[in-house]
Amino acid sequence: MPKFMDVHHGMKGITEEELRRAHDADLAIEEDERVHFEQAWADPESGTVYCLSEAPSADAVQRIHERAGHKADEVHAVPLVVR
Amino acid sequence: MPKFMDVHHGMKGITEEELRRAHDADLAIEEDERVHFEQAWADPESGTVYCLSEAPSADAVQRIHERAGHKADEVHAVPLVVR
Repeated sequence: MPKFMDVHHGMKGITEEELRRAHDADLAIEEDERVHFEQAWADPESGTVYCLSEAPSADAVQRIHERAGHKADEVHAVPLVVR
Repeated sequence: MPKFMDVHHGMKGITEEELRRAHDADLAIEEDERVHFEQAWADPESGTVYCLSEAPSADAVQRIHERAGHKADEVHAVPLVVR
């Protein structure tokens, strides 16, 4: 399944609890679009949130985020991954 | 150890091999700054690369990237992480 990195701006001051709640809202409905949000990272200072997912398409990722109430500003397919 | 997400723009058309080589160049010297680059993801279409690391500071992350020949455009501390 393709991987995606999506980015949310304007989240200055986001707390651990708010990030958890937003992520849980995605997880609760992600199966409707065969998406799985694997991890999310937040920088409360710049207000940036990064979400890594597996999904059939960028649109599927965005539909889940929109329904969960937090549309992403960017959704990038990341077909290349290294460790 | 704090976590960081750094972003490189302008990498349109990056290949798996180029990403691997760039990541290996970081790994080869990362210990000099007590940095560890955990993973990197690339979107060859938009030319965006994301690197996740553990490091003592954003400056330490940037110093390794600069010495490896690929300065990051942004380095964000990501103190909040959820799965």
